[in-house]
This record gives sequence, structure tokens and C-alpha cells, in this order.
Amino acid sequence: MADTNRQLILQARPKGLLAPGDLQLAESPVPELKDGQALARVKYLSIDPTMRVWMAVDTYLPAVALGEVMRAGGFAEIIESRHPDYKKGDRVTGLTGLQDYVIVDASAKRFFQKVPKIPFVSDTIFLGVLGLNGLTAFFGMEIAQPKKGDTLVVSAAAGATGSIVGQIGKIHGCRVVGIAGSDDKCAWITKDLGFDAAINYKHADWKEKLAAATPNGIDIDFENVGGEIMLEVLNRMNLHGRVVLCGLISGYTKEDPSMVNLGNILVKRLRVQGFIILDYASRFMEAATQLGQWKMFGKLKDRETIVEGLEKAPDAINMLFTGGNTGKLIVKV
Amino acid sequence: MADTNRQLILQARPKGLLAPGDLQLAESPVPELKDGQALARVKYLSIDPTMRVWMAVDTYLPAVALGEVMRAGGFAEIIESRHPDYKKGDRVTGLTGLQDYVIVDASAKRFFQKVPKIPFVSDTIFLGVLGLNGLTAFFGMEIAQPKKGDTLVVSAAAGATGSIVGQIGKIHGCRVVGIAGSDDKCAWITKDLGFDAAINYKHADWKEKLAAATPNGIDIDFENVGGEIMLEVLNRMNLHGRVVLCGLISGYTKEDPSMVNLGNILVKRLRVQGFIILDYASRFMEAATQLGQWKMFGKLKDRETIVEGLEKAPDAINMLFTGGNTGKLIVKV
Repeated sequence: MADTNRQLILQARPKGLLAPGDLQLAESPVPELKDGQALARVKYLSIDPTMRVWMAVDTYLPAVALGEVMRAGGFAEIIESRHPDYKKGDRVTGLTGLQDYVIVDASAKRFFQKVPKIPFVSDTIFLGVLGLNGLTAFFGMEIAQPKKGDTLVVSAAAGATGSIVGQIGKIHGCRVVGIAGSDDKCAWITKDLGFDAAINYKHADWKEKLAAATPNGIDIDFENVGGEIMLEVLNRMNLHGRVVLCGLISGYTKEDPSMVNLGNILVKRLRVQGFIILDYASRFMEAATQLGQWKMFGKLKDRETIVEGLEKAPDAINMLFTGGNTGKLIVKV
Repeated sequence: MADTNRQLILQARPKGLLAPGDLQLAESPVPELKDGQALARVKYLSIDPTMRVWMAVDTYLPAVALGEVMRAGGFAEIIESRHPDYKKGDRVTGLTGLQDYVIVDASAKRFFQKVPKIPFVSDTIFLGVLGLNGLTAFFGMEIAQPKKGDTLVVSAAAGATGSIVGQIGKIHGCRVVGIAGSDDKCAWITKDLGFDAAINYKHADWKEKLAAATPNGIDIDFENVGGEIMLEVLNRMNLHGRVVLCGLISGYTKEDPSMVNLGNILVKRLRVQGFIILDYASRFMEAATQLGQWKMFGKLKDRETIVEGLEKAPDAINMLFTGGNTGKLIVKV
């Protein structure tokens, strides 16, 4: 066992994209175990847009304090235990933080839960399809109340959450249109995932293409991006449409808070439901069971972008805003 | 019977407040009746913020065309009929328009419906408590799902809708705080209507006062105003609060569309429900019955500002944005 624990410490709150030094690599001793604790080796870290928010401001969780290990979801394996519920070899997911080792104890702060070893399934599935992204897609689509024949538009459609959202839409019989930032991503979600259409918003005529792809308007906006893209989707919403407000990624690296024209919400009788996945913690198992079945029967496909090396985590976070990843973005420690 | 029909014609789409000539008084012959039509003398016109929107843009109804009689709700009495359902003396409400006489026929476009003569009750109640304002308050509060002990904040609280909203809130056992634009209005809604507190947003310290009046945060925002007031209310919303988005008055006279920080909606898991009363047409009777009972038993109080003279209607509309009226604003033709 290594005797140091590498940690990425939040040194400065980023302006725009992360700058060198905002997260700084430090080494500290691997923590000593006390009774009631277990020590886990972090194997995989989940890299999600929400991390940029955690670096900046208090929201549904407090902002990460300067000088602290940066918060992140991860997959870890118990290597030593003085906790009755954990034994060596147990596997957990939770808010491990951007570090090599993490203490697992009874505190609920890190949301640890044990996960099983599933034959023929990679460990990383617990950070994607069976992790917070899959759960977010599942409950978000429950809020969306999809009906057969509805047109569903999802932004960041080739991302970890969006790609599952669209597929759940297809399961429910929706016409599914994804918005993404490259032709390759668009090809993936249409050809591999079965989306009915995909719009590359970097093409100058993307609004016309969105209109052509949604001839009957839009019933559900599964909104991950906000800003200009959301405004255009709102412009095409049908009466009584549902906007599942899941993320506002386009605003996370800007000084301005993300703004939108509420007049649309009013005139179109939209129900806008803000949504934080942690609220659904007590129902995670139910959802994971369903997601797992869909995955097993080929109803769900996913893709991973794996970045090697803990020290690459800052670059990985930026990838989320520069379009560098497709599907689930993961750092392999 | 007079042989001319005075009409206010929309001549120009206003910039900001209405300017002289945007609505121009014209005279035309009283229309000749055909079979299947009745002729009604307009008695009262309802003046509502939404009219400013109708003058400007297509929304839930098309914008009024230039050269047409300005759309408005009103109360009218049948003076001549060649329609089997109407006889002389029948009383109706509907979109009479800003004019002396209106043709009542089978077309649904003007939403005409007969109203009874109720002893000891003024006719104008059919434009206020038992009209679209009361119905808007009723169904809006149904959407709000008030629970005993909830804190309800309503903006434009001394207006026709807001004043009923707050009282329905009290009926449901809410703590009710109104936001209005003068000390007199604030005194009315607290002393006469039983609101727990009222905030005059024209005082420099209104945000502090709102905070003091909502020590447990805000569970329901019955939003009529939008803009800065709404942003501050959103800042004080509790998790899982309900925003009933009924109006965005503060934006109606501005070139900018009304904007709001969606981040609050997201982080606080708000459900924002746009809302247009016409959707509830099939349930108007049910609501009016309940409202009528509440009114009869003194559970609802109202106030009217009556402007005399059809030609004063443009000024009356402006009163809505300059704070000139309290309670239901009505033009007496």
C-alpha cells in the first residue's frame, strides 16, 4: 500500500473554465483508521457538470471550502476495515472526493453505499447507467410524464445523463430529438442509441434543423444546458409541455446567472420542475432495478470517455464545457 | 337608443405606457341584427393588465389587430334579440371589447355567458370576485396546493386578483404576506382583508421587511409581477415551494421580455406552473359557486376602483402600471 494519499485541493474558485492552480495536487498521509471506519482505495471518479457549481457557490450542497479536497462521486474498494458493515474487498460508491484514499464511516455526508459485483458488467456502470446519471434520467423522465407520441427534446444529449434520457424516451414511445455539439455525437445518438434526430447546435442553421426535426412542436424539454439553447427549445414547446429542469450547464462557467424568458413558461402553461436527484435517495433501488433490467435486455446503451490519471481530473472537468467527452466521463485514478 | 356605437380602436402598438392615439375613439353605426344574433349594451368593462399584452403581441390569444376594437372583458345587457337563447334584459359577461354595443352570437370567440341577477349584489361582481379575477385566484390557489401553516406571498396584492388570492390563502390557514405599491394599499389588505403582513415595495428597505415578514421562508409565491420583485421572492422560497406564475406585470410595459434566474427554480426544486384561466372554462361554475359562498359568508371582501366614461379606458389601463387603482379596476361606460 502506498503511504501517501494524493488529493486535489480546491485552492481558488474558478473564473470561467478552471485555470491551472484552481485545483492543486497535494500529498498527505493515508489516514489512520479508527474504530467504526474503513479505508477505501478510490478506483473511479465520476466527473459531472455539477462539480463546477460546487467549486463556486452554495447550492443544494454547500460549496467546497477553499483548502479542502474537491468533492466528486467515485467508486472505491475497501482495503482495510474497522467498521462492522464493511469488509476488505467490499465495493462502494459515494462522494469519495478527488483523492486516492477515502475514509468510509457511518456519516451520511458522503452518501456511501455498497454495490454488488455483477458478472460481465464493468465497475464503472455504477457511476453511469446505474449511478447518478441513470437515476437522474429515470426520475427526470418520471417528472416528464412521457406519453406515446410525445416529442422529447434533450440537450447535452450525448452526455451521461442525456444519452439515457433519450433512450428512456424511446422506451416510452416518444419521438426523441437530441441536441449535441458535434456531428460525431449526433451520429452516435441517432445511429447507435436510436434517437429519431440529432441537432448539432454548432451549425449555423441549427434552429431551422430543430424546427424541421420537431414538426409537431415539443412536448417535453429535458433541459440540461439552459441559455440560448433552452430559449429556442422553449420557443417550440407545445401548450402544457413539461420542462424538466435538470441542468443549466451553459451558465456554469459564466459570471452571469443563467436567465430565461419566463413569459414563455407562462403563456405556454409550462410546468417547470426544478429537480435534484438526492431527494429521491429512498427510491434509488427501485430505479436501479429497472435501469439494470433495461440495460440487461439491451434497451439502454451507454458510452464512456475515460481519462487516465487523477491529476487529469481538472482537464476532465473542463472537457464537460468544451465538448471533449461523449457519454459518461470518468477519470481512472 | 343611440344610433352610434363608440369604439376604441387600436391604432398603434404602445411603447411603454399607452400614448395618446394608441387607442382612438371612433364612432360607427350600431350594428344591424341578423338572425341568430342579439344586441347588447355594454355596461361595465373589466380593465386588466393582460390587455397591455393583447395590444402588443400574440400570446394565449392573438394580439388585437391594428384598426380593430380593443379587446376587453365586460358586462352587458341584451337590448334586442334575434337569437333563441337571449331575450331582452338578459345579462351577459364576455369579451365585449371597448365599445358601447356588442353583437352576441353563437361564436365562442367572445366567451359570452349569461349571468343571473343576484339580490343585494352589484353587477360588477361578475367582473371581479365572480369574474376572471376570482376564478384566476381560485384555480391558481388550487395549483398552489396550500397547506395549513404555509407562508403565501402574493404580489400586486391589492389588485383584483391578488386581493382574492390572499384571502383564499387565509381560508386555507396560510400565513399571507402581500406586496403592494403604497401604504394605503398595505393598510387595506392587512386591516380589512386580514393579510398577516404587507410590504410596500417602494420603501427602500422592502427586502428587509419582506424577510422579517417571512421568518420561515416562503412556500407559495402567487406571482403577478415578475422582475425584481419576483427575484427577491424566489430568493426566499423554501425547498419544494410552488410558484404560481399568473402574471409578469412589471414586464408588460417594457421592451425587454421579463427575465428571471432559473437557477433558483432548479436549486429549490420549484415547480413553476404557467397558468391561463381560459383552460379552466369547463369548471367555472364550480369555482364561482364556491367563491359566491365565500363572498356571501363574508370570507371574501373586495374593492373596486371605478373610472367613469368609456373614453377614460386608456387612462385606466395605465393606472394598472402606475399604481392608480386598488382592487378591481372597472370602467363605467
